[in-house]
Amino acid sequence: MNKQHPEYDALHQISRHAQVLTGISHILEWDQETKMPQDGGQIRSEQLKILAGIIHKEKTSKKFATALTKLIDIKSGKIVGNGLTTPQKSSVKAWRNDFVKDTALPASFVEEFTRLTSQAQLVWRNAKSQNCFQHFAPFLDKIIAMTRRKADLLGYKNHPYDALLDLYEPDITTKEVDKLFTDLRKSITGLVKKISASPEINDSFLFGSFDHDKQIEFSKLILDAMGYTSNRGRLDFSAHPFSSASHPTDSRITTRIHPTSLMSNISVCLHEGGHALYEMGLPEEHYGSPLGEAISLAVHESQSRWWETYIGQSDSFWKHYFPLLKKHFKGKLDSVAFEDFYQALNKVQPSLIRVEADEVTYPLHVILRFELEKSLIEGSLSVRDVPEAWNAKMKELLGIVPPNNSEGCLQDVHWSFGAFGYFPTYTLGNMYAAHLFGAFEKEHPDWKARVAAGDLLFIKTWLHKNIHQYGRQYTSKELLKKVTGTPFTAEAYSNYLNRKYKSLYSFK
Amino acid sequence: MNKQHPEYDALHQISRHAQVLTGISHILEWDQETKMPQDGGQIRSEQLKILAGIIHKEKTSKKFATALTKLIDIKSGKIVGNGLTTPQKSSVKAWRNDFVKDTALPASFVEEFTRLTSQAQLVWRNAKSQNCFQHFAPFLDKIIAMTRRKADLLGYKNHPYDALLDLYEPDITTKEVDKLFTDLRKSITGLVKKISASPEINDSFLFGSFDHDKQIEFSKLILDAMGYTSNRGRLDFSAHPFSSASHPTDSRITTRIHPTSLMSNISVCLHEGGHALYEMGLPEEHYGSPLGEAISLAVHESQSRWWETYIGQSDSFWKHYFPLLKKHFKGKLDSVAFEDFYQALNKVQPSLIRVEADEVTYPLHVILRFELEKSLIEGSLSVRDVPEAWNAKMKELLGIVPPNNSEGCLQDVHWSFGAFGYFPTYTLGNMYAAHLFGAFEKEHPDWKARVAAGDLLFIKTWLHKNIHQYGRQYTSKELLKKVTGTPFTAEAYSNYLNRKYKSLYSFK
Repeated sequence: MNKQHPEYDALHQISRHAQVLTGISHILEWDQETKMPQDGGQIRSEQLKILAGIIHKEKTSKKFATALTKLIDIKSGKIVGNGLTTPQKSSVKAWRNDFVKDTALPASFVEEFTRLTSQAQLVWRNAKSQNCFQHFAPFLDKIIAMTRRKADLLGYKNHPYDALLDLYEPDITTKEVDKLFTDLRKSITGLVKKISASPEINDSFLFGSFDHDKQIEFSKLILDAMGYTSNRGRLDFSAHPFSSASHPTDSRITTRIHPTSLMSNISVCLHEGGHALYEMGLPEEHYGSPLGEAISLAVHESQSRWWETYIGQSDSFWKHYFPLLKKHFKGKLDSVAFEDFYQALNKVQPSLIRVEADEVTYPLHVILRFELEKSLIEGSLSVRDVPEAWNAKMKELLGIVPPNNSEGCLQDVHWSFGAFGYFPTYTLGNMYAAHLFGAFEKEHPDWKARVAAGDLLFIKTWLHKNIHQYGRQYTSKELLKKVTGTPFTAEAYSNYLNRKYKSLYSFK
Repeated sequence: MNKQHPEYDALHQISRHAQVLTGISHILEWDQETKMPQDGGQIRSEQLKILAGIIHKEKTSKKFATALTKLIDIKSGKIVGNGLTTPQKSSVKAWRNDFVKDTALPASFVEEFTRLTSQAQLVWRNAKSQNCFQHFAPFLDKIIAMTRRKADLLGYKNHPYDALLDLYEPDITTKEVDKLFTDLRKSITGLVKKISASPEINDSFLFGSFDHDKQIEFSKLILDAMGYTSNRGRLDFSAHPFSSASHPTDSRITTRIHPTSLMSNISVCLHEGGHALYEMGLPEEHYGSPLGEAISLAVHESQSRWWETYIGQSDSFWKHYFPLLKKHFKGKLDSVAFEDFYQALNKVQPSLIRVEADEVTYPLHVILRFELEKSLIEGSLSVRDVPEAWNAKMKELLGIVPPNNSEGCLQDVHWSFGAFGYFPTYTLGNMYAAHLFGAFEKEHPDWKARVAAGDLLFIKTWLHKNIHQYGRQYTSKELLKKVTGTPFTAEAYSNYLNRKYKSLYSFK
């Protein structure tokens, strides 16, 4: 399948070595969150630090650079290797982009940043629990100063935030995100206003007492139907759910069980299962090269949200699963009608905490963070004014104001570890999914009937054929265009939300 | 606690790096046997191989050699560093011995040996399942030829087997083992003859149907009492039980549950718990240096057998636990008297399979293997004659002959991966434990009463004070002498077995 090319293969082998080590660190991280004895934390940090050091050394080694230089001019990005196939050319370009990023930051800078953010995470945790933004502010100040410096070192054309975005979602600019989010913001705030004016949905029957083992059994039923096979994965528990793969043959997920909430674990499993299926679907023969890697965080998120919301919160899905759910949790939903259940699981209500937000208001939380991050990096907003700016934007976007900073600007861990540029990928993922879904609907006009009959495997097959199998052969934008035939805009997502919630809330 | 010594500390730091990586490979091996999805095997092998390569490189690096040379002359083993404490001198000597061993085998030899034994393990597995020694014989032939070469490369004074022993149990010679095993063999075969002439013990009530969860609960009760704390360890399931530590703060064990056997899981937990307590008890400040490592396989085995047999098969132990066991497995042991239970769990019966052997006949299985290994390495026994020699020795030592080679010379995996010199450590471990137990009894003449009252923690404390805390400061022989005041012989072990089983079987 892979065309033989000695120089390409040599580079692949060097890269594979580092990738195997990265896979090892994923196993250690998984173990840390799921199985590790409590006192093992300190040695685990040391294990991960040492591995990260070796990986970084290999990825930026002279050996790697020499092998890469035979195929591409590192400075200009011009392909110089002969006889490369088109996918191999994409792969070489991706390798080069990674190499440029990996070598852009001096070791002393990385060390200082790591030291600062390790400390900042502890400070943030205390600040959050004590509701004291002042404690965290000086650290956030330093982190932003260093992040600006990081953007300068990484380089950008128009906006320093471009360099940060590029770390998580390559090939998209601040200006583009701005445009997408402005369109989306308008559309969603309008939608939220209409919803707020509608009668409130009753979702009380989704809360009560739901047996731990029964919850797990039900989510395993769904994971099986999705094609998440136990030969290549497993389901465990952790405080914060995540998915973690060390190879397509070992792609694990975790969940957490809220004994009082029926839907929480189901949503998590659909979401993490979507991430895990992407990793399982990457081509094994390209493991260790960009052709064996996921494109970006936002494309990854498109896969998780695809399963969690487009499928898992659709009426078709529950036409099949609601009767099974009723039977599985006998006595809990006996008198609940399908329509009421479907409405309840799609209930919209502006709330303070991002991770608990519904499908409609979630993007507003992300847009808020994007706007603040941009201003902080530009320097048009100073750290001491963050709480006020946060609350003003909450009022503006969601119509509510947090009673304190713990439930406001201190709620997320991301800033404390310096991950500026990360938040937008959550919502871009939703938007990518909507765009891709159009192509899926075209190819499977009968998808609703099939899903309502309990068939989910054809969806996995479609995602594999159109997305997973290509690894990083295409950039996000190229992939979206290739699959759908149309350039990516916010339209599909806005339309999806408007159509779905108009019908759900019965307004015009 | 650790005296500052810049050169020593520098060496420690280099060594610690490799030790952290070794700890990572232990986590990966643990995961492979307990949690890994079925299809993850191939990438796991690659992960372990790559890690092993990096570890070997670091342990044999010029950087390591240079740091070591500042403290000891590698060739002669003479200490050259000034101002080292006595423990530091032991540590430096151990580092040097490891380095000499690690660098004795050329990379090409190691690779060829690894390739051969990887293949041989698959062949052995088939040969065993098909009862066909001929399939395995040519591989065993090659392994022995290479193992002789290995012994030559490692070097030895008197017997090539010395070099192999030294890999697993440093500081003991073939001649010494020969003497110990000859004494032991005589003593045990005499004992077995007397036991065989005594009325058979009824142990039928130890077999039946015993609930899985209840079995686990009971062994956890014991592990807790031993001081195996869950903050630093965990208990899982695997096909073959083992213990695995990556650091004193993360020392895990596994067991397997036979639903029809009451004692199997309990024995396993006592045994693996003993191994794990040794690792938990090593001094953290010396982690990554020989002062933070276990002395040898046999000393490790002394710790597991200590808990499994000296404590876990004693009447004192069961005076406390038998009433609890009866209550825990209500209806299963109601009519069983304490004396009958104690006799049953110490029932002696010559049998074919080493891993299922009782306390008395187990050493005979090991002695058989030691004698055959020695002859094979000397060349006085040829591979094609192994089955016959095996059966003859079984007849001679245990009075029974296997009906086929699968239950005879093909039963163990060890030879297929080239681990000649390993078997003796099992029985040396038992013998060390017996020798050490004398000192324990002197210090705690009331140990039986305390154990019968349910106290086990003072035993852990004693083992920590006398053994665990020293790491590799002493060799096995030095430690045995230091703790007991007398040089090590087979006497304590023979006496222990004779005393115990004379009373159990009521013969003179």
